[in-house]
Amino acid sequence: MNHITEEFLKVVSDFQGKFVGAFNIRENGQCAGRQSTKNIKIETKQDKPGLVIRVMPGTKGETVSIPACVTQGGIDDLVYNDFYIGEDADVTIIAGCGVHTDGDDARHNGIHRFFLSKGAHVLYKEKHIGTGNGKGIRRIDPVTEITLGENASLEMDTVQLSGVDSTIRTTSGTLAAGAKLLVRERIMTDGNETAKTDFKVDLNGEDSGVDLISRSVAKGHSHQEFYSRISGKNRCMGHSECDAILVDQGTVSAAPMLDAYHVDAELIHEAAIGKIAGEQILKLCTLGLTEEQATQRIIEGFLK
Amino acid sequence: MNHITEEFLKVVSDFQGKFVGAFNIRENGQCAGRQSTKNIKIETKQDKPGLVIRVMPGTKGETVSIPACVTQGGIDDLVYNDFYIGEDADVTIIAGCGVHTDGDDARHNGIHRFFLSKGAHVLYKEKHIGTGNGKGIRRIDPVTEITLGENASLEMDTVQLSGVDSTIRTTSGTLAAGAKLLVRERIMTDGNETAKTDFKVDLNGEDSGVDLISRSVAKGHSHQEFYSRISGKNRCMGHSECDAILVDQGTVSAAPMLDAYHVDAELIHEAAIGKIAGEQILKLCTLGLTEEQATQRIIEGFLK
Repeated sequence: MNHITEEFLKVVSDFQGKFVGAFNIRENGQCAGRQSTKNIKIETKQDKPGLVIRVMPGTKGETVSIPACVTQGGIDDLVYNDFYIGEDADVTIIAGCGVHTDGDDARHNGIHRFFLSKGAHVLYKEKHIGTGNGKGIRRIDPVTEITLGENASLEMDTVQLSGVDSTIRTTSGTLAAGAKLLVRERIMTDGNETAKTDFKVDLNGEDSGVDLISRSVAKGHSHQEFYSRISGKNRCMGHSECDAILVDQGTVSAAPMLDAYHVDAELIHEAAIGKIAGEQILKLCTLGLTEEQATQRIIEGFLK
Repeated sequence: MNHITEEFLKVVSDFQGKFVGAFNIRENGQCAGRQSTKNIKIETKQDKPGLVIRVMPGTKGETVSIPACVTQGGIDDLVYNDFYIGEDADVTIIAGCGVHTDGDDARHNGIHRFFLSKGAHVLYKEKHIGTGNGKGIRRIDPVTEITLGENASLEMDTVQLSGVDSTIRTTSGTLAAGAKLLVRERIMTDGNETAKTDFKVDLNGEDSGVDLISRSVAKGHSHQEFYSRISGKNRCMGHSECDAILVDQGTVSAAPMLDAYHVDAELIHEAAIGKIAGEQILKLCTLGLTEEQATQRIIEGFLK
């Protein structure tokens, strides 16, 4: 694999020279390394480009890393990865993505489907970054489809902090009885970047629940859009929260939707968009920081 | 005017046998009484059915009542009323509407446009009710367009508590510098009733502000939809809040949208949908109320 891929792996997958556990490295649409383990099988998908990842029932504490890197312009990478997580398994899946171009447009489009069996738990980490110079547009358009069986749970931690010119992030979840979905999204855009996120969660099962928290910072002339739709179709709990900080000329639209289709559905939403309060900056300035440093510090805390 | 109109007027306009101030009573698409005052002129609209109401600059403490009643089936009443409020005027406008049918469908569709000059203030009260038996559908579809000049303010208090089978309520506001819009909406639906509300507010002027509070109760098999879109295009404050209580098989969808197009736009939204908490009912039951009485009491407080 090339040195840009190596750099990306450090950032998006905490890569230290080698991976522990099962992994597959995708580089410019090709496989640059793969390893299955006794409990986790990674196979090439037969009908489309991508992987089929199977985690055996009861597997605990193991990790699957499937970073995808696009390191040059002119590549429009599309990949379909399916994850089948066996009953009562508890694993971490790391699916970082880096896109680099100094020339033409470069794009990674990963379509990830998760099927969690009864009682399974997944921590899903997704970190996105773009690098490179020139006018080539760096795009990352992830699609995540989550199907949670009875009492299954998935925590999704998704971060995009810099360098991606355009992203459309589409996430959907379907929850059976007792299933829980927790999503933490953090996005920072700058320059003329645009980011759109679209969540759709169906709380079908009794006592299913979702907690969806999005924090974003729009700097420069960047624009972000946040859409969410939580539908409660049974006794369930749904919460979504969308906080955005505006800096410079950044703009943000937030459109969260709640559907209560059942009398025992409890759905709550909060959204707040605004710039950093003057007093907050003033307080840090009295401690010796410049206004710029203070802003930086507050944003770091907000996105941590 | 007929006795159903008289009954409606008591409910929607606090009518006590006569009106104080300027008024126009609309009954089944016809004028059943009108009075202008020295400062408030009510005239027949020339190009369309409806009224042109002009409030002289500086008018203080006066009231305009323009109730509209449909008292029989087979009527589809459409009216266009324009209000021009002079500089620094401060008036109350009461625009109640009742629809009654024992037979065929009956509908009132009032399109109200408000143009407030600099510094003007309007308290706008809108109360809707439906009565009658039989299968005829009772519809009230109000459209309210509010244009607020510099430092003008409008408080809209809108209530629909029973008997309207279908309502689509469309409200839009355009605010100049320093203008304020305050909306309080209260809706209760039952049976197979449906209610849809759609707010769109453009905060164009510096230091403009909107506060939009919707409280609703969906009983029986009724369904409600709430849409709002607040766009901040300048230094401004926008807040919307949507609380809904579910009873029986009632369902509610809420889709509030915030657009921050300016770094000094501060926009906040909260929404909560759910049934009445068991503890709340229990508390009232220990004070001697039945569960039904307790529910009734809590709903009354919520919609007060």
